[in-house]
Amino acid sequence: MSELRKDPVVGRWVIISSERGKRPSSWAGQVNRKGGGFCPFCPGHEDKTPPEIYAKRPLTEAQNVPGWQIRVVPNKFPALKVEGTLHAKGFGNYDMMNGVGAHEVIIETPKHAADLTDLSDAQATDILLTYRERMVDLARDARFKYVLVFKNHGGAAGASLEHSHSQIIATPIIPKRVSEELEGSKRFYNHKERCVFCDMIQYDIKSKVRIISRTENFVALAPFAPRFPYETWLLPMTHFSHFEKMPETLFGQLANILKDTLRRINSSLGYPPFNFVLHSAPVQVEEMLVYHWHFEVIPKLTSIAGFEWGTGFYINPTAPEVAAEHLRKLETTT
Amino acid sequence: MSELRKDPVVGRWVIISSERGKRPSSWAGQVNRKGGGFCPFCPGHEDKTPPEIYAKRPLTEAQNVPGWQIRVVPNKFPALKVEGTLHAKGFGNYDMMNGVGAHEVIIETPKHAADLTDLSDAQATDILLTYRERMVDLARDARFKYVLVFKNHGGAAGASLEHSHSQIIATPIIPKRVSEELEGSKRFYNHKERCVFCDMIQYDIKSKVRIISRTENFVALAPFAPRFPYETWLLPMTHFSHFEKMPETLFGQLANILKDTLRRINSSLGYPPFNFVLHSAPVQVEEMLVYHWHFEVIPKLTSIAGFEWGTGFYINPTAPEVAAEHLRKLETTT
Repeated sequence: MSELRKDPVVGRWVIISSERGKRPSSWAGQVNRKGGGFCPFCPGHEDKTPPEIYAKRPLTEAQNVPGWQIRVVPNKFPALKVEGTLHAKGFGNYDMMNGVGAHEVIIETPKHAADLTDLSDAQATDILLTYRERMVDLARDARFKYVLVFKNHGGAAGASLEHSHSQIIATPIIPKRVSEELEGSKRFYNHKERCVFCDMIQYDIKSKVRIISRTENFVALAPFAPRFPYETWLLPMTHFSHFEKMPETLFGQLANILKDTLRRINSSLGYPPFNFVLHSAPVQVEEMLVYHWHFEVIPKLTSIAGFEWGTGFYINPTAPEVAAEHLRKLETTT
Repeated sequence: MSELRKDPVVGRWVIISSERGKRPSSWAGQVNRKGGGFCPFCPGHEDKTPPEIYAKRPLTEAQNVPGWQIRVVPNKFPALKVEGTLHAKGFGNYDMMNGVGAHEVIIETPKHAADLTDLSDAQATDILLTYRERMVDLARDARFKYVLVFKNHGGAAGASLEHSHSQIIATPIIPKRVSEELEGSKRFYNHKERCVFCDMIQYDIKSKVRIISRTENFVALAPFAPRFPYETWLLPMTHFSHFEKMPETLFGQLANILKDTLRRINSSLGYPPFNFVLHSAPVQVEEMLVYHWHFEVIPKLTSIAGFEWGTGFYINPTAPEVAAEHLRKLETTT
């Protein structure tokens, strides 16, 4: 059983999960689709994952057999487990909780060698709708304060299997950086009665230099103070606090700009490993004026000068205006 | 000229430093002492670095010639530069400062193939005294609010040259994680009138399970909620807020436990890349009851599942009690 532990100085929660240490890895390091070897995410190997939680499966009602387009299964090496009631306890000076939560894998395509940018717009849209589906379902469990969607692409970005997938973790706490964003944006709102993200979007669209691309309702931009070279944020231009509460009609456009952004990164930076993380308002909370959901996409380019972990102080060799110009001028074939 | 930029949402400062993108790299990836190739840190190549700021040089008064035991030079590709007056400015909604600061390199030994654990206790002590020397000197510049000492060892940990060295960055702001520690420890002190680090040391010494080693005045331990496997903290058992204000008599013992800790990590984990960071109270501030200086040592073992950057939420597969037991039982030859 894993544990949630709280740092007594800064109050950061950490998951201590010994089972995660045991998982296998099919990655050598570079992002290439070697194929070969055994893949538990490929069709025909449905019995090599825990039974599916959800699947998009056009032709049949059967479960755990081939024929699916998207498949959601529990992570075989979960950081947190669904079973059990949540209880917090003290240990001398220390605080901990048992590791109650959920950890799921979204297998994005039956094709082993395809990544997100290879998929049709319809398939990419269905992946985003699957995120929504799982967020809404997990939010029904009152123990979960936050549902975190993220993708590790490539071994250097933390993926342990190469078959294209995303992950969802539902947690009984709100992750530190999200709560910092919530606090920061509340402070801004109290001061100015405006959403800090809406303000940023308006200012950046006017100044143009950090904009990478736009659709009617979404924008891809390099943030003003990025921690990492080519860090890219995707935001809806209309204010929405919750990803999962956005009108269904917008998901196609979002899939389009997400694929376009990843294509720009691939073509500009040579198919780097990357992560993206969905920052959305806490699932149990009503629509918020102060917060604005967004994706953060981080290509893994630098070997992180590790003192950055120890200090929270980042040195970024690429100005966001330079990164944005580079990504903006690429032709992408959609 | 580099810039300091502030994230408008969470308030984190980032250094945007385009010159850092140009630095060369002698690392292939693994930590091994290939030798061969040209090293600007080796004796005889003093003209390949900027002129020295400080050196420990037993036999002569000359500068920038061989004969030194430790040499401090400005970083050739600095994240921040000493010249200029500090000014903050706004950019629409955004805040920035010009990149005034200092960025120095401490070349720890004339021997290209030696690392910290190969050096004599006297040499290791002199390295720590050199940290102190530079901290005290940089603190004379009132523009600098914080002086950060850290070491990147191995390419995967961010080192761009293999010759053993540490770095110092003096900044006009207090790094985020340090200010979080200051706030957290102030909160604890206001509540309990005790230092949270002193409390932790006492509790952990009693419970034993997270202690790695001890000398008369120092302790090496695995913290209760570590972000990374085998993360190790070194702390003085007596309360000191400022590393540089600790009595000189204690530096030998500190050198000893630092070398011992790195030996345990090397022997247990196969010479991994690592970082260490010195967390000390802000240099311009008087002795503090609430804060307690310490080293954080982080072996680079996992390819960081990058969503951790995006969330501040860490999953650590190795419980600190397991790591501590492993490191504790190793025989180290001192």
